[in-house]
Amino acid sequence: MTLDMDTLSYDSNGLIPAIVQDNRTGEVLMLAYMNKEALQKTIATKETWFYSRSRKELWNKGATSGNRQVVKRVSLDCDQDTVLVQVEPLGPACHTGEKTCFFTTAFEEEPSIREVIHEVADEIKERREN
Amino acid sequence: MTLDMDTLSYDSNGLIPAIVQDNRTGEVLMLAYMNKEALQKTIATKETWFYSRSRKELWNKGATSGNRQVVKRVSLDCDQDTVLVQVEPLGPACHTGEKTCFFTTAFEEEPSIREVIHEVADEIKERREN
Repeated sequence: MTLDMDTLSYDSNGLIPAIVQDNRTGEVLMLAYMNKEALQKTIATKETWFYSRSRKELWNKGATSGNRQVVKRVSLDCDQDTVLVQVEPLGPACHTGEKTCFFTTAFEEEPSIREVIHEVADEIKERREN
Repeated sequence: MTLDMDTLSYDSNGLIPAIVQDNRTGEVLMLAYMNKEALQKTIATKETWFYSRSRKELWNKGATSGNRQVVKRVSLDCDQDTVLVQVEPLGPACHTGEKTCFFTTAFEEEPSIREVIHEVADEIKERREN
Protein backbone atom coordinates (compact mmCIF):
# COMPACT_ATOMS: atom_id res chain seq x y z
CA MET A 1 0.00 0.00 0.00
CA THR A 2 1.21 3.49 -0.82
CA LEU A 3 0.58 5.93 1.98
CA ASP A 4 -1.43 8.95 0.95
CA MET A 5 -0.25 11.54 3.46
CA ASP A 6 -3.09 13.88 2.50
CA THR A 7 -5.93 11.57 3.54
CA LEU A 8 -4.73 11.33 7.14
CA SER A 9 -6.73 13.07 9.86
CA TYR A 10 -4.30 15.62 11.24
CA ASP A 11 -5.56 17.70 14.18
CA SER A 12 -6.17 21.44 14.02
CA ASN A 13 -2.41 22.02 14.41
CA GLY A 14 -1.60 19.69 11.52
CA LEU A 15 -0.34 16.96 13.86
CA ILE A 16 -1.04 13.25 14.28
CA PRO A 17 -0.02 11.19 17.33
CA ALA A 18 2.61 8.54 16.63
CA ILE A 19 3.00 5.55 18.94
CA VAL A 20 6.52 4.11 18.85
CA GLN A 21 6.84 0.41 19.64
CA ASP A 22 9.88 -1.87 19.93
CA ASN A 23 9.53 -4.24 16.99
CA ARG A 24 11.20 -7.13 18.81
CA THR A 25 9.77 -7.02 22.33
CA GLY A 26 6.47 -5.29 21.59
CA GLU A 27 7.20 -2.76 24.31
CA VAL A 28 5.56 0.63 23.78
CA LEU A 29 8.42 3.14 23.97
CA MET A 30 6.91 6.60 23.58
CA LEU A 31 4.24 8.74 22.01
CA ALA A 32 5.15 11.84 20.05
CA TYR A 33 3.56 13.91 17.30
CA MET A 34 4.27 14.03 13.58
CA ASN A 35 3.24 16.52 10.96
CA LYS A 36 3.12 15.57 7.30
CA GLU A 37 6.79 16.40 6.78
CA ALA A 38 7.90 14.36 9.81
CA LEU A 39 5.95 11.36 8.53
CA GLN A 40 7.43 11.72 5.06
CA LYS A 41 10.95 11.94 6.47
CA THR A 42 10.31 8.96 8.77
CA ILE A 43 9.41 6.76 5.81
CA ALA A 44 12.08 8.19 3.49
CA THR A 45 14.98 7.90 5.96
CA LYS A 46 13.71 4.88 7.96
CA GLU A 47 14.45 6.83 11.13
CA THR A 48 11.86 8.50 13.35
CA TRP A 49 11.16 12.21 12.89
CA PHE A 50 8.69 14.13 15.04
CA TYR A 51 7.36 17.63 15.42
CA SER A 52 8.16 19.20 18.78
CA ARG A 53 5.12 21.09 20.04
CA SER A 54 7.24 23.05 22.54
CA ARG A 55 10.16 23.94 20.27
CA LYS A 56 7.91 24.17 17.19
CA GLU A 57 10.35 22.34 14.95
CA LEU A 58 11.07 18.94 13.46
CA TRP A 59 13.41 16.65 15.33
CA ASN A 60 15.15 13.49 14.30
CA LYS A 61 15.04 11.17 17.31
CA GLY A 62 18.59 10.25 18.35
CA ALA A 63 20.33 12.78 16.09
CA THR A 64 22.07 14.25 19.17
CA SER A 65 22.02 11.31 21.62
CA GLY A 66 22.70 8.56 19.09
CA ASN A 67 19.60 6.74 20.32
CA ARG A 68 18.06 6.48 16.87
CA GLN A 69 15.07 4.32 16.05
CA VAL A 70 15.30 2.27 12.86
CA VAL A 71 11.83 2.09 11.31
CA LYS A 72 10.60 -1.40 10.43
CA ARG A 73 6.91 -0.73 9.92
CA VAL A 74 4.41 2.11 9.85
CA SER A 75 0.69 1.40 10.29
CA LEU A 76 -2.41 3.57 10.41
CA ASP A 77 -5.49 3.04 12.51
CA CYS A 78 -8.98 2.57 11.09
CA ASP A 79 -9.93 6.25 11.18
CA GLN A 80 -6.46 7.37 10.10
CA ASP A 81 -5.87 9.69 13.03
CA THR A 82 -3.04 7.76 14.71
CA VAL A 83 0.20 6.29 13.41
CA LEU A 84 1.94 3.22 14.85
CA VAL A 85 5.68 3.10 14.18
CA GLN A 86 7.47 -0.16 14.90
CA VAL A 87 11.19 0.30 15.32
CA GLU A 88 14.48 -1.25 16.27
CA PRO A 89 15.71 1.12 18.98
CA LEU A 90 19.46 1.78 18.99
CA GLY A 91 19.28 3.06 22.58
CA PRO A 92 16.83 4.21 25.25
CA ALA A 93 13.72 5.99 23.96
CA CYS A 94 13.36 8.20 27.02
CA HIS A 95 15.38 11.35 27.72
CA THR A 96 15.75 10.07 31.32
CA GLY A 97 17.80 7.11 30.04
CA GLU A 98 14.98 4.63 30.60
CA LYS A 99 14.31 2.18 27.76
CA THR A 100 10.68 3.30 27.53
CA CYS A 101 9.00 6.56 28.55
CA PHE A 102 6.23 4.50 30.24
CA PHE A 103 8.26 3.54 33.30
CA THR A 104 5.76 4.88 35.83
CA THR A 105 3.17 2.29 36.79
CA ALA A 106 -0.06 3.80 38.09
CA PHE A 107 -1.99 0.55 38.47
CA GLU A 108 -0.94 -3.04 38.07
CA GLU A 109 -2.69 -6.33 38.57
CA GLU A 110 0.19 -8.69 37.85
CA PRO A 111 3.30 -8.73 35.65
CA SER A 112 2.44 -9.98 32.17
CA ILE A 113 3.79 -13.29 30.89
CA ARG A 114 5.38 -11.42 28.00
CA GLU A 115 7.37 -9.18 30.32
CA VAL A 116 8.47 -12.07 32.49
CA ILE A 117 9.76 -13.89 29.39
CA HIS A 118 11.83 -10.89 28.31
CA GLU A 119 13.12 -10.32 31.84
CA VAL A 120 14.23 -13.95 32.09
CA ALA A 121 15.83 -13.75 28.63
CA ASP A 122 17.70 -10.57 29.61
CA GLU A 123 18.89 -12.20 32.82
CA ILE A 124 20.17 -15.28 30.98
CA LYS A 125 21.96 -13.08 28.44
CA GLU A 126 23.52 -10.98 31.18
CA ARG A 127 24.76 -14.02 33.11
CA ARG A 128 26.29 -15.49 29.96
CA GLU A 129 28.09 -12.26 29.21
CA ASN A 130 29.37 -11.60 32.74
CA MET B 1 2.31 4.20 43.33
CA THR B 2 -0.95 6.05 43.79
CA LEU B 3 -2.00 7.88 40.67
CA ASP B 4 -2.60 11.57 41.22
CA MET B 5 -5.07 12.36 38.47
CA ASP B 6 -4.56 16.09 38.97
CA THR B 7 -0.87 16.13 38.09
CA LEU B 8 -1.42 14.68 34.61
CA SER B 9 -0.93 16.93 31.59
CA TYR B 10 -4.37 16.99 30.02
CA ASP B 11 -4.67 18.97 26.77
CA SER B 12 -6.73 22.16 26.41
CA ASN B 13 -9.88 20.01 26.14
CA GLY B 14 -9.08 18.14 29.36
CA LEU B 15 -8.08 15.00 27.46
CA ILE B 16 -5.07 12.69 27.49
CA PRO B 17 -4.30 10.09 24.78
CA ALA B 18 -4.53 6.49 25.96
CA ILE B 19 -2.71 3.74 24.08
CA VAL B 20 -4.37 0.35 24.53
CA GLN B 21 -2.10 -2.69 24.25
CA ASP B 22 -2.83 -6.41 24.40
CA ASN B 23 -1.13 -7.55 27.60
CA ARG B 24 -0.35 -11.01 26.26
CA THR B 25 0.81 -10.45 22.67
CA GLY B 26 2.08 -6.87 23.03
CA GLU B 27 -0.03 -5.85 20.05
CA VAL B 28 -1.09 -2.20 20.05
CA LEU B 29 -4.87 -2.30 19.71
CA MET B 30 -6.10 1.29 19.54
CA LEU B 31 -5.60 4.85 20.68
CA ALA B 32 -8.45 6.78 22.25
CA TYR B 33 -8.79 9.71 24.62
CA MET B 34 -9.58 9.82 28.33
CA ASN B 35 -10.59 12.68 30.56
CA LYS B 36 -10.05 12.54 34.30
CA GLU B 37 -13.36 10.77 34.90
CA ALA B 38 -12.67 8.13 32.21
CA LEU B 39 -9.29 7.39 33.77
CA GLN B 40 -10.81 7.14 37.24
CA LYS B 41 -13.50 4.77 35.99
CA THR B 42 -10.92 2.69 34.08
CA ILE B 43 -8.92 2.07 37.24
CA ALA B 44 -11.97 1.64 39.49
CA THR B 45 -13.83 -0.83 37.23
CA LYS B 46 -10.75 -2.47 35.59
CA GLU B 47 -12.46 -1.94 32.23
CA THR B 48 -11.54 0.74 29.68
CA TRP B 49 -13.51 3.99 29.61
CA PHE B 50 -12.87 6.75 27.10
CA TYR B 51 -14.19 10.16 26.21
CA SER B 52 -15.66 10.33 22.72
CA ARG B 53 -14.59 13.59 21.07
CA SER B 54 -17.35 13.30 18.46
CA ARG B 55 -20.23 12.31 20.75
CA LYS B 56 -18.84 14.36 23.63
CA GLU B 57 -19.57 11.69 26.21
CA LEU B 58 -17.93 8.90 28.18
CA TRP B 59 -18.05 5.43 26.74
CA ASN B 60 -17.29 2.08 28.27
CA LYS B 61 -15.51 0.05 25.57
CA GLY B 62 -17.47 -3.11 24.83
CA ALA B 63 -20.57 -2.13 26.83
CA THR B 64 -22.66 -2.62 23.67
CA SER B 65 -20.55 -5.07 21.64
CA GLY B 66 -19.36 -7.20 24.53
CA ASN B 67 -15.77 -6.64 23.40
CA ARG B 68 -14.63 -5.35 26.76
CA GLN B 69 -11.01 -4.84 27.71
CA VAL B 70 -9.97 -6.06 31.15
CA VAL B 71 -7.35 -3.69 32.54
CA LYS B 72 -4.16 -5.32 33.80
CA ARG B 73 -1.88 -2.30 34.03
CA VAL B 74 -1.92 1.47 33.59
CA SER B 75 1.35 3.36 33.06
CA LEU B 76 2.21 7.01 32.50
CA ASP B 77 4.96 8.39 30.35
CA CYS B 78 7.80 10.57 31.63
CA ASP B 79 6.05 13.88 31.01
CA GLN B 80 2.67 12.54 32.13
CA ASP B 81 0.82 13.46 28.94
CA THR B 82 0.10 9.94 27.68
CA VAL B 83 -1.40 6.86 29.32
CA LEU B 84 -0.58 3.26 28.38
CA VAL B 85 -3.32 0.77 29.24
CA GLN B 86 -2.43 -2.91 29.04
CA VAL B 87 -5.48 -5.10 28.76
CA GLU B 88 -6.85 -8.56 28.20
CA PRO B 89 -9.19 -7.99 25.25
CA LEU B 90 -12.42 -10.01 25.34
CA GLY B 91 -12.96 -9.43 21.62
CA PRO B 92 -11.78 -7.29 18.69
CA ALA B 93 -10.71 -3.75 19.59
CA CYS B 94 -11.77 -2.28 16.26
CA HIS B 95 -15.33 -1.40 15.26
CA THR B 96 -14.57 -3.07 11.88
CA GLY B 97 -14.19 -6.44 13.63
CA GLU B 98 -10.40 -6.46 13.25
CA LYS B 99 -8.42 -7.44 16.36
CA THR B 100 -6.50 -4.15 16.24
CA CYS B 101 -7.36 -0.77 14.73
CA PHE B 102 -3.85 -0.65 13.20
CA PHE B 103 -4.55 -3.09 10.37
CA THR B 104 -3.46 -0.77 7.57
CA THR B 105 0.24 -1.07 6.83
CA ALA B 106 1.71 2.02 5.19
CA PHE B 107 5.31 0.87 5.12
CA GLU B 108 6.92 -2.42 6.04
CA GLU B 109 10.43 -3.71 5.89
CA GLU B 110 9.86 -7.26 7.04
CA PRO B 111 7.46 -9.09 9.38
CA SER B 112 8.75 -8.95 12.94
CA ILE B 113 9.91 -12.10 14.70
CA ARG B 114 7.32 -11.42 17.39
CA GLU B 115 4.49 -11.42 14.88
CA VAL B 116 5.73 -14.54 13.16
CA ILE B 117 5.83 -16.35 16.52
CA HIS B 118 2.22 -15.41 17.26
CA GLU B 119 1.10 -16.31 13.73
CA VAL B 120 2.72 -19.74 14.01
CA ALA B 121 1.19 -20.23 17.48
CA ASP B 122 -2.26 -19.30 16.14
CA GLU B 123 -1.82 -21.68 13.21
CA ILE B 124 -0.82 -24.56 15.51
CA LYS B 125 -3.77 -23.85 17.80
CA GLU B 126 -6.16 -23.71 14.84
CA ARG B 127 -4.91 -27.00 13.38
CA ARG B 128 -5.25 -28.71 16.76
CA GLU B 129 -8.79 -27.48 17.13
CA ASN B 130 -9.93 -28.32 13.58
